Parts: sequence; structure tokens; C-alpha cells
Amino acid sequence: MVSERLSQQLQFILEIDRLKGVLRRSLLLESRRRENSAEHSWHLAMMALVLAEHANETVNLLHTLKLLLIHDVVEIDAGDTYAYDDDSHDGKIERERTAAIRIFGLLPPDQAAEMTALWEEYEAQQTPEARFALALDRFMPFLHNYHTGGITWRENRVTRAQVEDRMSPVGTGSDALGAAVAAVVEEATASGLLPRSWPNL
Amino acid sequence: MVSERLSQQLQFILEIDRLKGVLRRSLLLESRRRENSAEHSWHLAMMALVLAEHANETVNLLHTLKLLLIHDVVEIDAGDTYAYDDDSHDGKIERERTAAIRIFGLLPPDQAAEMTALWEEYEAQQTPEARFALALDRFMPFLHNYHTGGITWRENRVTRAQVEDRMSPVGTGSDALGAAVAAVVEEATASGLLPRSWPNL
Repeated sequence: MVSERLSQQLQFILEIDRLKGVLRRSLLLESRRRENSAEHSWHLAMMALVLAEHANETVNLLHTLKLLLIHDVVEIDAGDTYAYDDDSHDGKIERERTAAIRIFGLLPPDQAAEMTALWEEYEAQQTPEARFALALDRFMPFLHNYHTGGITWRENRVTRAQVEDRMSPVGTGSDALGAAVAAVVEEATASGLLPRSWPNL
Repeated sequence: MVSERLSQQLQFILEIDRLKGVLRRSLLLESRRRENSAEHSWHLAMMALVLAEHANETVNLLHTLKLLLIHDVVEIDAGDTYAYDDDSHDGKIERERTAAIRIFGLLPPDQAAEMTALWEEYEAQQTPEARFALALDRFMPFLHNYHTGGITWRENRVTRAQVEDRMSPVGTGSDALGAAVAAVVEEATASGLLPRSWPNL
């Protein structure tokens, strides 16, 4: 009744339900609960729909959406890695590669290969779509931090220079979004949310 | 520094963060917390990527993804309407239309018009992409109900006939998924999760 192929596809679809339980550091604007990686991925896809015109290079929208929808799936096994935590980046790529093999491997071989290639393309940052997708992925939590009063910056004593470094791919992907980051950084520093240095404890 | 157009687009992107706070009846497979409409929309988009080959009609994948990503945004104002609650369907379309005008209206006029047209297309069910998108939207909570022990069916005394009626668009969009529904319905009835009738209280 249900083919082996469809059965494998449904197994993958059920498995990725777990991405809804992977929590990021970012807080939602209204409830201030922590965001999960599935709803984050939806939000990024919506950003791509609305902001594609601002990409520096011509991007294929479908391809950009695929990259954004699948790029965090590996976190089901590998967990989310906080942007400003250097230690947790150790071994990140190996953990994620192992996760990609297991999770995408639930799919029929042709689709497993396609999904793995998309994930690797995002990581390698060698195509216009990968660069624009990364720009959105960096820009979004920055906006969230600013609009939730810089709580996660303060908790982690993140400085303006760290944020500017972290946000550099935004301008690579989109001059307009890069300029928006620069404007918000100025405001955040002026209002004390994002200082150049934090006082000694 | 930030154009009026980009400023409107960012306002929309910040506003739709609220979809992450709209709770559905469906439970997540692992934690059994209620699913929100943003993570649900991501999951549907992933289903479209994986299952598009099973659509009865040829569908444009990008167009299908757009329909799925935006179709629940109106719930930010209008709320989620439970499938098996006939009363809450009263006035649903008017509530959602008012929501569409306000929320998509945050965007620049050309994008507001595009998003509104996509939402109306989904509701009207007159295109192959709209039919396939609805099939996925019906199929997903059914799978979730089955794999979480039929809790929401039991709580709401939903019968097999109600589910079969609710699932009829699945077969319209995809014979293969319609057959999968039929197989799971049989299993759910056999195991007592989805009876033909519930005993009187």
C-alpha cells in the first residue's frame, strides 16, 4: 500500500519533528522564550521571500529557500552552537557531518545525496545563494537581540567589535542589509545595549 | 541609510515573529507540547521538498513553498481554527481576510499584493499547487495525531468518519498520500485509537 520509497520519506519527515525541540539563544520578541531551530528556519525562509531583491548577486529563490529550510536539520543530533562561544565551535563541523549522514540518510539515496549536497553548499559558502542565505542567518538573530533589549548580548558580555565581526557576512551577501546592520549597531551602542567594552566584574 | 522600502520589509519580518506564539492542537512527537504555526509551516515546506514527486498534478515547487510558508500568517490575528470544531469556523474567512489586509499591508504595495494573492490562491483551491499544499497541510497533523497515540482524537471524540472526511483533500492532491492515509486509518481503528464511534459519556 505504501511504497518503500514513501515509507523512507515519511520516516525522515517524522524524524525532523525533533528540530522543534532544539533551542537557540535568541529570544522571541513578544514572549521572550527561546527560539527553536524549526521556527527560526521558517522565519529565514520568509526573509528570503521578502528580501531577495537586496542580494548583491542574482540568486535563485528556490535554491535559496532549500538551503535555508535544511541548513539547521543537522542540529537535531549536533545541537545549536552559540555564535559567541568559541569553545563550542570545536568539533562542530565533524558533529554536523555525522548528523547529516544519519538524518539525510533516512531518505531514499537520491534525496539523501541532494540534501547532503545542499547542506555542504551552505557550509562551503561558494555560491551566491549560500552567501545570501548566510547573510540572512546572521542578520535575523542580530535583529532579535536588538529588539529584545540586548539581553543575550549583556548575558554573554558581547562587545560591539564581536558583533561587527560576526555580522561581516551580512554585507557580503547584501549591501543594503549590511548598511542596516551598521545603522542598528550605532543605535545600540548609543543606547548602551552594545558597548565597545563591558566593565570588569 | 535604510530605505523606506527596506524599513517596511523589516517591519513585516519582525511582526511575523508572532506566528511562533500561535498554538495548534497538534502535539510534537517527542515532548508532546503543542505545536506552533511557524514551526508547522517549516515542517510543511520540508514535506513539499521531499514529497513533491507524489503530487497528482505537476506542481511548481517554488510556488508550492510560497503558499505553504505564508498560508498561516493570518493566524497572528485570526488564531488557529481547530479542524474538528465546527463553531470556530464561523466567521473564520472574514477574520482571516481582515488579518491578511493588516499584516501583508505592512509590506511595500507590490509585495503586499503578491502575498495576499498567494493567500487567496491557497484558500480558493483552484490551482495544482494549492491542492497539493492543502494535501500536505491535512496529512501532517493526521500523522502527528497517529504517532502521539491519538490523544487529540480522544480528547475531542473525533470519529473515523470525521477523519476520513477531513482527509479527503489528501487524495485529491496525491494518490500516494491518500493511500497512506487509508492504511494508517485502518491501523488506527484496529488499535482502538480512532473508533467508528465513541461510547456515550
